[in-house]
Amino acid sequence: MSAARPRVALAMTDAARERMFPAARLAEIAEVAEIVGHLDEFTSDAAREILASTEVIVTGWGSPLVGTEILDAAPQLRAVLHSAGSIKAYVDPEVLLSGVAVSSMAAANAIPVAEYTVAMIVLANKRILPVAARYRQQPHGFDIEAAFPGLGNYGKRIGIVGASKIGRLVIELLRAYELDVVVHDPYLDEQDAAELGVRVLELDELLATSDVVSVHAPSLPSTRHLLDARRIGLMPQGATLLNTARGEIIDQDALTTRILAGELFAVLDVTTPEVLPAEHPLRGSDRVLITPHAAGSLGSELGRLARAVRDELGRLSRGEPLAFRIEPERLEITA
Amino acid sequence: MSAARPRVALAMTDAARERMFPAARLAEIAEVAEIVGHLDEFTSDAAREILASTEVIVTGWGSPLVGTEILDAAPQLRAVLHSAGSIKAYVDPEVLLSGVAVSSMAAANAIPVAEYTVAMIVLANKRILPVAARYRQQPHGFDIEAAFPGLGNYGKRIGIVGASKIGRLVIELLRAYELDVVVHDPYLDEQDAAELGVRVLELDELLATSDVVSVHAPSLPSTRHLLDARRIGLMPQGATLLNTARGEIIDQDALTTRILAGELFAVLDVTTPEVLPAEHPLRGSDRVLITPHAAGSLGSELGRLARAVRDELGRLSRGEPLAFRIEPERLEITA
Repeated sequence: MSAARPRVALAMTDAARERMFPAARLAEIAEVAEIVGHLDEFTSDAAREILASTEVIVTGWGSPLVGTEILDAAPQLRAVLHSAGSIKAYVDPEVLLSGVAVSSMAAANAIPVAEYTVAMIVLANKRILPVAARYRQQPHGFDIEAAFPGLGNYGKRIGIVGASKIGRLVIELLRAYELDVVVHDPYLDEQDAAELGVRVLELDELLATSDVVSVHAPSLPSTRHLLDARRIGLMPQGATLLNTARGEIIDQDALTTRILAGELFAVLDVTTPEVLPAEHPLRGSDRVLITPHAAGSLGSELGRLARAVRDELGRLSRGEPLAFRIEPERLEITA
Repeated sequence: MSAARPRVALAMTDAARERMFPAARLAEIAEVAEIVGHLDEFTSDAAREILASTEVIVTGWGSPLVGTEILDAAPQLRAVLHSAGSIKAYVDPEVLLSGVAVSSMAAANAIPVAEYTVAMIVLANKRILPVAARYRQQPHGFDIEAAFPGLGNYGKRIGIVGASKIGRLVIELLRAYELDVVVHDPYLDEQDAAELGVRVLELDELLATSDVVSVHAPSLPSTRHLLDARRIGLMPQGATLLNTARGEIIDQDALTTRILAGELFAVLDVTTPEVLPAEHPLRGSDRVLITPHAAGSLGSELGRLARAVRDELGRLSRGEPLAFRIEPERLEITA
C-alpha cells in the first residue's frame, strides 16, 4: 500500500500553503501521499526538477495556473486536486481534456456557503436584524408584529436561483423547515427537481412570488445581470435578495434603487466591485447586510477542504476513482 | 362525525384572538369543532352561560387563568388546548390533576426558537455580524481571518444546556452540520442522549469547552442563575452565549462584565428586565445582538400554532388521543 503513495507537489504560495495545510494537516496528507515539494511557480529549474517526479499537483486559492506546459514538465502527472471551489483561474481546460484527472473540492467548499445562506434566510424572514436595530433605538420596547407586519418563517416561499452544488445543498438543508422552496435552473429537469423535492418555476414567477430569493448561479457571460432591472422590479415589497454567488449576476444599481426606496432587503456576500466605495449608499442602509466574501470557507472550514484533499489522495493511493473529478462536458456550465 | 364536533370556547382577549385566529383560521377550526363563544373572563353571567355547554377551552398568550372554579362552571369540560408554549400562567395544575386533558402547542412553538438558535450558531461561529460591522468601518477592505482568528463552523463544539423540546429540536437541526454537539440536562440519561446522537457533559465541562453555548433550560427556582458568575467565568475567550430561554437563568451582570472586557460574545433574545434600561451597557456593545423576545412564534408562525390547535380538535372529534397532552408528572420540570 505504502508503495502506491502518490508523489505530490503542493503548488501554492507559502502563505496560502501555511493557511490551508499547517503542520498537523500536512502530517495527515503524508499518511496517504509522499510530498515531493512545494512550488509557487512551474518554470524555474528547481520547479521543473520537482515536477519531473510529480504525480499529483495540489492547488488552491492564489495558485499559479496549471497550463499545458505542465504536461511536458510533469510526464507522470495523473491528477490535479484543487483545494478550493471553481477551477477556472487555476487549471487550463486543455489540461483537463488531455486526460489528467482534475478534481475540485467545490462540494466541501459549498457547505459553509449553504450554511450561511440558510441562516440568512431564517433571519430575513424573522426580520431579526431590523428588529435588533429598532430595539437599540427604542429604549421602551415596541410591538414587533406591528413594526414588521408579515414576518415569520412558517409557509414562506424561498426562491433558489441556480441548482448548483451550493443551491442543492441549500435545498437539502431547507428540507427540515416548513417553507415552500422553489427553484429556477435552465439545466434542471422536472425529474431532477422532483428528486430534490422542489418545484421548478420560471425565473420571472420565482422572483415575483418569493419572500426570499437566493442566488446560486455560476458567473458566466450568459448569467451577467441575469437579475436585471426589470426582473428586480418583479420582486414584491418586503422581499429579501440574498447573493453569495457573484456580484455581476445582479444589476446592483437597480437593486440599490429599490432598497433605498424602502421596498426590498438584501444580504450581500458579494458586490461589484468586491469592496464597495466608502460613499456607496448600500453601505449606510440598515436594510442591507454586507459581508466581504465571508460565506465561503474560512478559518476552521479550511480544515474541511484539506481533509477532502487528503481523502482524494487516499483514493488515488488505493486505485479508487476520485470522488470529485470534474467531467469535461460539465466545464461550460460550472462556476 | 359532525355530531362529535366538540363545543369550543376561545378564551382570549379580542386582540389576542384576532391575532391568533383571524377569519381564515377560525374557518379551519369550524371544520372540526363548533365554536360556542368567545370569552376573556370566566366569571360573568354571559361567560358562565357559554361555559355551561363548553367541552373545550382554547387559551393563548394573555388568556385568563383557567382555575378550579372552571370545573363547576363547565361541567362538560374535556380539554384545555393552549395555543402557545408554557401553560404555567394559564392553567392551574389542579385542573390538570382533576382529569381534564391539558394540551400545549409547545412543540409547534419550539420550532421558530430552534430555527433562530441554529441560524445564530452558524452566524456566531462565522463572526458574521462583527465582520459586517468591521466592513462598514473599513472602506478599503480587510483580512477577515487575521481580524477574527479561529472563525468557522467546521468541527466547532456546540453546548446545549437543557434537552427541552427546543433543545432537542436544535440538536436535530444541527445533525446536518459538521459540529460537535454536546448537551447537559439533569433529566437526560445516556440512552436518551445516544438516541439524540449527542454526548452528555457535566455543565462545567460543557461551558469550559464549547464555542457556542445555547440555553434551553426551563425557568424554575432551581435554574435561577444556573449560569452564575463562576460558570460564566469558565467560558473560553471568544465563545458565544446564546439565550432564548429566560433571562433569570443567567447572571446577567457577570455576563456583561466578560462581554465588555472583550472576552465573550452573546445573542440574547431574553434579558433581565425584559426591556433593558436605555443606558444599559449591553445595548451599546457590538459583541451582543439583542432581540426583544423575537425568536418565538410571530407573524406567519402563529399560523402553525393555530393549525396545531385545529389538529388537536380534529383528534378530539374523532375520539383519538391528543398529540400534545401534558402528563401531570412532567409539570414540575416543564417550562
